[in-house]
Amino acid sequence: MKKLGEFERIAHYFSPLVAGQSDALGLADDAAIVSPPPGMRMAVTADALVAGVHFLESDPADRVARKALRVNISDLAAMGADPYGYTITLALPSGMENAEAWLEAFASGQRSDHLTFGIRLLGGDSVSTPGPLTISVTAFGWIPEDRALLRSGARAGDDIFVSGTIGDSGLGLAVLRSEIADIEGPDRGYLVDRYQLPEPRPMLGRALLRVASAALDVSDGLVQDLGHIAKASGVAANIALPRVPVSAAAAALVRSGKSEPVNLIASGDDYELLFTAPKEAREAVLERAEEAGVPICRIGKILPGRGVYVVDEVGNEVAIERRGYTHA
Amino acid sequence: MKKLGEFERIAHYFSPLVAGQSDALGLADDAAIVSPPPGMRMAVTADALVAGVHFLESDPADRVARKALRVNISDLAAMGADPYGYTITLALPSGMENAEAWLEAFASGQRSDHLTFGIRLLGGDSVSTPGPLTISVTAFGWIPEDRALLRSGARAGDDIFVSGTIGDSGLGLAVLRSEIADIEGPDRGYLVDRYQLPEPRPMLGRALLRVASAALDVSDGLVQDLGHIAKASGVAANIALPRVPVSAAAAALVRSGKSEPVNLIASGDDYELLFTAPKEAREAVLERAEEAGVPICRIGKILPGRGVYVVDEVGNEVAIERRGYTHA
Repeated sequence: MKKLGEFERIAHYFSPLVAGQSDALGLADDAAIVSPPPGMRMAVTADALVAGVHFLESDPADRVARKALRVNISDLAAMGADPYGYTITLALPSGMENAEAWLEAFASGQRSDHLTFGIRLLGGDSVSTPGPLTISVTAFGWIPEDRALLRSGARAGDDIFVSGTIGDSGLGLAVLRSEIADIEGPDRGYLVDRYQLPEPRPMLGRALLRVASAALDVSDGLVQDLGHIAKASGVAANIALPRVPVSAAAAALVRSGKSEPVNLIASGDDYELLFTAPKEAREAVLERAEEAGVPICRIGKILPGRGVYVVDEVGNEVAIERRGYTHA
Repeated sequence: MKKLGEFERIAHYFSPLVAGQSDALGLADDAAIVSPPPGMRMAVTADALVAGVHFLESDPADRVARKALRVNISDLAAMGADPYGYTITLALPSGMENAEAWLEAFASGQRSDHLTFGIRLLGGDSVSTPGPLTISVTAFGWIPEDRALLRSGARAGDDIFVSGTIGDSGLGLAVLRSEIADIEGPDRGYLVDRYQLPEPRPMLGRALLRVASAALDVSDGLVQDLGHIAKASGVAANIALPRVPVSAAAAALVRSGKSEPVNLIASGDDYELLFTAPKEAREAVLERAEEAGVPICRIGKILPGRGVYVVDEVGNEVAIERRGYTHA
C-alpha cells in the first residue's frame, strides 16, 4: 500500500474525527483554539505509551487507541474533572508495513471513545521513529472552581473505598504473555479485555467531588497507589485483603492456585478509583456511586501514622513483597 | 551512577521546576489544575521530537529541551497566543548510560526557557523505551476571545512578510552532518545555534493580532509553508527570491558556492513567522514588528489563483525542485 506523508496521514485519518468541531480548526492550523466554560478550571494530564512496554504489539490498534485515551481519562476522573478533549502525538516505526491499516483501526478506536466519553481530538503530530510505536496523549477536562479531588486530603478515621475489581488487568497481561496457561473461554476474554480496555470512571469522579476527601486512579497497583495517598496526606492506610473486590474470573484463578490474592493488589493497570471519605459521608458515598452506576467497596480505614498495612480476615498483617508495578 | 525509578526521576529533576507554582500540584497528583484568565481562549498545540530524526543524539540535552519547547512556542506564536505552560512526556532509552546527567542538563534547559518565555511545566510522564529518545510536548497559551492569527485569512493584494532570516537551520544541520565542510569560527557556531536553538517569535505574533490577515511558523520550509497559507486561503502567493532575508553566514556560503539561494527556502526548521497583511496595514505591520523587536522583511504579494511562485530579480520564475522538508 502507498505510504502517506505526514500531512496526508493527518488529513486522511484524523481530520474526519474533528468534522463539525470548530475548535480543532480541521487540524490544519498551528494550534487549536478552545473556549473554557465560565467558572471552570482546567485539569490537564499526560501519559505516554510505548509498544512492548505499556501495550503489546499484538494488541488490536483500535484498543491501543482507546487505552491511550482511557489511561488519561482515568487521571481526569481521579481529579473529579469532566473530560473534554486531548492532543495526541504518534511516533510510528519507519518500516511499519501495515501502517495505513493500523492507522485506520486506530482512528476508529478514537472515534468510538469520543462517543463513549464525550471527548474530542484537538490536535497532534505524527512522526516516524526507528524505534517502537510510541503514543503520547495530553488530556483536558473541566472542574468547578471551588473543588477538586486531590491525593492529599485523607484524614485519620476516613473510610477507604475502591471501584470495580482489582487485579484483572495484571492477570490479563499474564494470560496474553502465556504466564497463565489453561484458561480459555469467557474468563480469558474478560481478563484480556480488562488489560487492553480499562474502564475509567469519570462519572464516579464527578459524583465524589463533594464527598470524597482524597482520590487517585489505581495504575501502579493498589498497595503502591494507596501509599501515594497516605504519603501525600501524612497518614497511614489499613486495608483488609478479603474486602478487596475481585472478579469471578480472578477468584477462579485464585481457587485453582494460578494466582494469589496478594498478587492482585500489587499488579498494575487497574484504572479504578481509589478514594477516601469521612465516616459520616459513608451513606452519601454509596448513594453517589450507585447514581453513577459504578460498584464500589469499602476496603479499609485511614489511621494516624504512615505507611500502608494489609491485614487478613483475622487482622494479622499480610507480608507484601512486591508493592506495585513500576513502569519506568 | 544509580538508576532512578519513574517517581524519583520526576521528583528529583522536574519537581524543582514547579516550586511555588500551585497549578502543577508539585507534579504529585493525577493532573494539574489551571485557571484560565477571564475573557481569554486557550490555544493548544503538540509536537513530538525523535532523536536522530528531529534532533541529533549529539545535541546537548539542555538545547534539546529548549528546542522541544521552542517548536511548540513557535506554533503558539503563529496563532498570536501568549505562551503559558506545557506538558511533556519523555521516552528514555532503557539502556541509556548517562540518563541522570542527561536529565539534569535537560531540566536546566527547561528552567532557562521558563524564564525566557514566561512558561511553566504543568505535568508529564517519563517512561522507558527500547528505541530512541522521544519527546512529546503539548503547549498552551492564551488568546483574546475576538481574534486569532489563522492560516486562512490571506486575500489577493496582501503583502507577504517573514521574520528573521531563512535557511540558517538547514545549513546548521548540514554543517553538523559534515555535508558542508571547511566552515569554522563564528559562522559555524551561528548556523549550528540556529538549528539547535530556534528563536520563536511570540512577541511578534501577539503584536500582529490586529493587523495580519494570515500567519504560520516556518517549520517545513518557506515555500512549502507559504503553500499552506495559499491553500487554506484559496489564493496564490508570489515571492521574490532576492527579497528573502538571509544571514551573513548563509550569504557567505552562497557566495562560496556551498549553498544555493533556492535551497534556503526549501529547508526546514526555521521557526520564523510567515504572515500576510493588507497593503493598507503595511506601516502598522512595520511599526508593530519594530516594537516587538523582531526584524521582518516584505518578500512578496498574494494574488488571485492558487500555488506558490518564486521569481528572481527580473521577475522570471525560479524552478523549485524540492519544495520543503517532510518530517514524517
